Amino acid sequence: MTDKRRVRLGMVGGGQGAFIGAVHRIASRIDDRFELVAGALSSDGARAAASAADLGIAADRSYASYAAMAVAEAARADGIDAVAIVTPNHVHAGPAIAFLNAGIHVICDKPLAATQADGAAIAAAVAASKAHFILTHNYTGYPLMRQARQMVADGKLGALRVVQAEYAQDWLTETIETTGQKQAAWRTDPGQSGAGAIGDIGTHAFNLLSFVTGLRADALAADLHSFGAGRRVDDNAHIMLRFQGGARGMVWASQVAPGNENGLRLRVYGDKGGIEWGQENPNLMTYAPFGQPKQLLTRGGAGLGGNGGQWTRIPPGHPEGYLEGFATLYNDAADLILGLGDGALLPGIAAGLDGMWFIDACQRSSAADGAWIRR
Amino acid sequence: MTDKRRVRLGMVGGGQGAFIGAVHRIASRIDDRFELVAGALSSDGARAAASAADLGIAADRSYASYAAMAVAEAARADGIDAVAIVTPNHVHAGPAIAFLNAGIHVICDKPLAATQADGAAIAAAVAASKAHFILTHNYTGYPLMRQARQMVADGKLGALRVVQAEYAQDWLTETIETTGQKQAAWRTDPGQSGAGAIGDIGTHAFNLLSFVTGLRADALAADLHSFGAGRRVDDNAHIMLRFQGGARGMVWASQVAPGNENGLRLRVYGDKGGIEWGQENPNLMTYAPFGQPKQLLTRGGAGLGGNGGQWTRIPPGHPEGYLEGFATLYNDAADLILGLGDGALLPGIAAGLDGMWFIDACQRSSAADGAWIRR
Amino acid sequence: MTDKRRVRLGMVGGGQGAFIGAVHRIASRIDDRFELVAGALSSDGARAAASAADLGIAADRSYASYAAMAVAEAARADGIDAVAIVTPNHVHAGPAIAFLNAGIHVICDKPLAATQADGAAIAAAVAASKAHFILTHNYTGYPLMRQARQMVADGKLGALRVVQAEYAQDWLTETIETTGQKQAAWRTDPGQSGAGAIGDIGTHAFNLLSFVTGLRADALAADLHSFGAGRRVDDNAHIMLRFQGGARGMVWASQVAPGNENGLRLRVYGDKGGIEWGQENPNLMTYAPFGQPKQLLTRGGAGLGGNGGQWTRIPPGHPEGYLEGFATLYNDAADLILGLGDGALLPGIAAGLDGMWFIDACQRSSAADGAWIRR
Amino acid sequence: MTDKRRVRLGMVGGGQGAFIGAVHRIASRIDDRFELVAGALSSDGARAAASAADLGIAADRSYASYAAMAVAEAARADGIDAVAIVTPNHVHAGPAIAFLNAGIHVICDKPLAATQADGAAIAAAVAASKAHFILTHNYTGYPLMRQARQMVADGKLGALRVVQAEYAQDWLTETIETTGQKQAAWRTDPGQSGAGAIGDIGTHAFNLLSFVTGLRADALAADLHSFGAGRRVDDNAHIMLRFQGGARGMVWASQVAPGNENGLRLRVYGDKGGIEWGQENPNLMTYAPFGQPKQLLTRGGAGLGGNGGQWTRIPPGHPEGYLEGFATLYNDAADLILGLGDGALLPGIAAGLDGMWFIDACQRSSAADGAWIRR
Repeated sequence: MTDKRRVRLGMVGGGQGAFIGAVHRIASRIDDRFELVAGALSSDGARAAASAADLGIAADRSYASYAAMAVAEAARADGIDAVAIVTPNHVHAGPAIAFLNAGIHVICDKPLAATQADGAAIAAAVAASKAHFILTHNYTGYPLMRQARQMVADGKLGALRVVQAEYAQDWLTETIETTGQKQAAWRTDPGQSGAGAIGDIGTHAFNLLSFVTGLRADALAADLHSFGAGRRVDDNAHIMLRFQGGARGMVWASQVAPGNENGLRLRVYGDKGGIEWGQENPNLMTYAPFGQPKQLLTRGGAGLGGNGGQWTRIPPGHPEGYLEGFATLYNDAADLILGLGDGALLPGIAAGLDGMWFIDACQRSSAADGAWIRR
Repeated sequence: MTDKRRVRLGMVGGGQGAFIGAVHRIASRIDDRFELVAGALSSDGARAAASAADLGIAADRSYASYAAMAVAEAARADGIDAVAIVTPNHVHAGPAIAFLNAGIHVICDKPLAATQADGAAIAAAVAASKAHFILTHNYTGYPLMRQARQMVADGKLGALRVVQAEYAQDWLTETIETTGQKQAAWRTDPGQSGAGAIGDIGTHAFNLLSFVTGLRADALAADLHSFGAGRRVDDNAHIMLRFQGGARGMVWASQVAPGNENGLRLRVYGDKGGIEWGQENPNLMTYAPFGQPKQLLTRGGAGLGGNGGQWTRIPPGHPEGYLEGFATLYNDAADLILGLGDGALLPGIAAGLDGMWFIDACQRSSAADGAWIRR
Repeated sequence: MTDKRRVRLGMVGGGQGAFIGAVHRIASRIDDRFELVAGALSSDGARAAASAADLGIAADRSYASYAAMAVAEAARADGIDAVAIVTPNHVHAGPAIAFLNAGIHVICDKPLAATQADGAAIAAAVAASKAHFILTHNYTGYPLMRQARQMVADGKLGALRVVQAEYAQDWLTETIETTGQKQAAWRTDPGQSGAGAIGDIGTHAFNLLSFVTGLRADALAADLHSFGAGRRVDDNAHIMLRFQGGARGMVWASQVAPGNENGLRLRVYGDKGGIEWGQENPNLMTYAPFGQPKQLLTRGGAGLGGNGGQWTRIPPGHPEGYLEGFATLYNDAADLILGLGDGALLPGIAAGLDGMWFIDACQRSSAADGAWIRR
Repeated sequence: MTDKRRVRLGMVGGGQGAFIGAVHRIASRIDDRFELVAGALSSDGARAAASAADLGIAADRSYASYAAMAVAEAARADGIDAVAIVTPNHVHAGPAIAFLNAGIHVICDKPLAATQADGAAIAAAVAASKAHFILTHNYTGYPLMRQARQMVADGKLGALRVVQAEYAQDWLTETIETTGQKQAAWRTDPGQSGAGAIGDIGTHAFNLLSFVTGLRADALAADLHSFGAGRRVDDNAHIMLRFQGGARGMVWASQVAPGNENGLRLRVYGDKGGIEWGQENPNLMTYAPFGQPKQLLTRGGAGLGGNGGQWTRIPPGHPEGYLEGFATLYNDAADLILGLGDGALLPGIAAGLDGMWFIDACQRSSAADGAWIRR
């Protein structure tokens, strides 16, 4: 980079006790490209102020509402360049639109929104704004997933045929949303999340397979189910996919699969080769050129033709993980915001709308007893 | 065992150049409970005779047809107790019925038959005969799969919720059936096989999940596809399952997934725990009791409560494989035939008919654009 | 094979309750090249007879002593071609010499003997006999170990530098030899075994590394220890090795390492590449050509240049295990005995003497506080 | 934490092109407890200034020498609290002593020094200073290694018997030090590094095994070798260890083992259980309670009794890696410096001197043909 200026960052949500806000903050710090200077960290004013103080945000830049923050920061000469939105899904559209309208870049947690209407409204705001919109489908920041995307594009797998994606967890095996667990409470509340496993993790799987393969899903058939007694959203989803060009696929998303912590896995097969990868050991990917021995590709390791290493910080064998992958999105965002890069690998509004289609199609298909829903 | 007598075995099919016939013969030898004494090893008389000579079968017990063999062996005082049928699928019904009618026990390779009509005819013959009928869904012979079945029955996994089964191979990535490869030729000929991946390997996956979980599939929705140019049977199948009692599942069967040699994998999740297993390293299974560390169970290893070891020959850490698992079915068959066991774990006609339902339902669902097919 | 005759086999040891005798019998049956027709199965006459009856050996060919058996079988027109010696180590020399002197081929369990003197006596008998002597270092029968040997010979690893071998078990973590466990009792009795972990499993590791690398150990330094209270033989051994030509190595053998069932592992590194393999999943080996991605080689799988598949029975992905590897030694032995092969890959008396040097050098080095012992 | 103040940090070394300096900076940022405000980043004045500008260090706090920096910073009211020393080994003692004498806390990269004399001099300075001295044996920051240490201390493994540690890499397989590769050049120059593989990576393995087990090595016997043509330091080391109390161990350190990127592995066995762990997938550890199934422990995962999670930032299944482990040392250092913690888990001067003993003993033993060197 030639421009050493750090991006001035604000945050909406992410106050004391939140999970993903802290992740965004660490991710923004790892490569030292951002400076957190403002926030509307909580809808509870006292908690917002206390959280801001914890984070070293000046009192006069801790806001009681995102609306006030957007107005005030847009008016400051040293106002924020970008805002990270890390609220529950039903509070994405409000701040996203406010900041986009104020010409401030938006880095928004996924999925895009809790409702289709909210998603469409964000898209309209993006279209009308000069500001960038980045959706943190963070798993696309893993170097080997970017490597995989390049390998597919380079034809190493040949014509794609089959895509198997899954995202399995076990943390909702019991109905902990009834016991006051905050994360479980909002994620299983349809009013706040808009969907269950398909929104929370299914969209990650769908985004990642789309990112790596470049395939566009034409149609899907879904069987959603809720195993937790009284649970109001899906906690297990089986989905069959058909892609433009004829490839077929499956997605399994589950939050009730004991023994699975964060089991996002992707397998892609073409007529010349296959790749397999799992998020829990993200520094390793197998590549099977058909008819030859399977290869173990490592992050930045031997034989990656230079691509593997450009999105990583430390030598092969020194594992990078979830936070570094997330940080790579922030690093790309800094480049984009500062005019040093084109953000070509960053998920944006198109990925967000694609995810909203996925959620909606899954829900409509399942409601229609698994009928294929076409775009 | 108290009866040291070896079972006198005949074989239909399995002549020179065949694959599964040799597997059956090794499996029958491992525990020294069988003696191969007769055969109709090929429909080609010269090859039948040469194959018999290779195997040490007396010339007068090498038959030109299974029909002649059934008659002749039934008439001998020292005639065969049992016959192994290792022909292509469309030649299962003929010999099975002939030997059942002759009162000779039948050990038949899977799937049951190439057509529903053939399957029904075999079932009728089984019902009318005093002889036993055993279908070699050999993967049920793996000690850890029997262990898993017992764990499910004992409630270690709680109420079952999700079953993920898959069977992935890559040997049909290219259309080798057009190049004279004998195995590929008959297995992709609908007249001989009756179905593609769903019959050849999908039935194994479906049988294994049924065996382990004890769940009965109520309905399925399938998306079959053939990626090989000009291929007349499915080579990739995506299937969603609903079980009696509410559990859900998925089966993926593919013969066009580069890098997969014989990737039969089973994962079962209940409200108290989960298990995961893969055939390519069959001596290992993970068991995750919910809320506790995942356990690595090994064949015959520590903590298996005595069950793991009863279907194995050598100590833990000394790997047993495909042939030993297959041999366990033969060993159980010997017990059943000699009146030393009840064959409770052996797949029989019910498993065979279940597989025929699976094949038929997959084909009908896929033809109906993935509509759910109910029993 | 052109000669279909089966080898007539006798057995010394291996009566009811024994472990390795049963392994030899299964191994001899798998490829149907042997017929067990005679035995001196136990030093206890009644048990010998009962065991013979169990195994279908005719009463007149069940002998009360190996000496009587050698004489009688040598005199029969249909006498045994070969004998398998499966007794504790201190009863190897007696029968081996008797049968060699009688011109009967010997297949002897490892290590060669319980004492150096016994080893030398066997070697003398081998030198004086036209019969073959085969030592069942069975792990050399694994296809991927033979593949590895070929790769080293072909220069795929370049000039060898470092060899890491280990064989870890946990079954002697507690002093079960004091509780009547028969296997533990004789293996920890120096009079019967001659050595502890170094003899029982260390010789396997040493043999395997020698077989694969072709390196000859020039010198070693050992630190033997016995952790079991009152145990009279070593149960843990740390050994450093120096090889002709300058390569260096390590062997670790332990029977007190909880969690290790039968952890024989071999890693070999040269200036152009490395290989890594573990016995518990023997169908998989990694090969790292320096500067290129690591490869996963599978038994009989893609890219093995034809070598991987010639010592295996079933397609890749269908796991073969311990018994099949053992059977490959028996198969090679049949070829050798029947004049159909040269037995080039079979461990013989040289390997046996090499193992005796290893045991002796370890004991002398350890007694001299780890001084290097040179050949 | 109650004190939100960030530690003011300086750095010696780590200018443009350096590796470990960047790692220290990321590690110091991850938990937002440090602020980098001063540096003597290079012995080359221009490069020092340019590097400082890159890092946002004010020009007046970029120093041409560590000596000047120690004096100036000690005199400032807002002077640095601590300094990170990230120079080659032979430039550890100078700055460490200067800053310790100035009462500024020292965070020093490992090993302690390039010579025994330098190590002793640092120790004397530590003894005479009120400032803390922290040595970044970063692998002790991995949560599962801290978990392992606690498990050993809690007696979960019983009385310890055998420790197997190894650290294998392949980056010096070829003599890249002759081609201008900067990292290779200084690390293979005895004047700058003081030792080869044993210093660079062997000390990590030795430190980690000591940290986890609490065992003190009484004696060692080493066989060091240099395989690279003309290489002046060891690139492969085989070491046998004896510990106080009777446990035995082995260390293998190699930089010429193709296929090994950063293969630090630790295995510890006692009379009640064993653990096994590898750095390349640091979120996973196996624990084998003797006689029970092996357990897969995950970072922060089920059943860790609360210990696993206290040194981690994100939920289980979201992998943390090398940088996060390193950051945990920085986090502990911040607590120690700010009076919020006792630094009980931080490696300090004792660990540094232990490593210097290890290096020296390895070199003396190897020079004496592997004689045991006792403390």
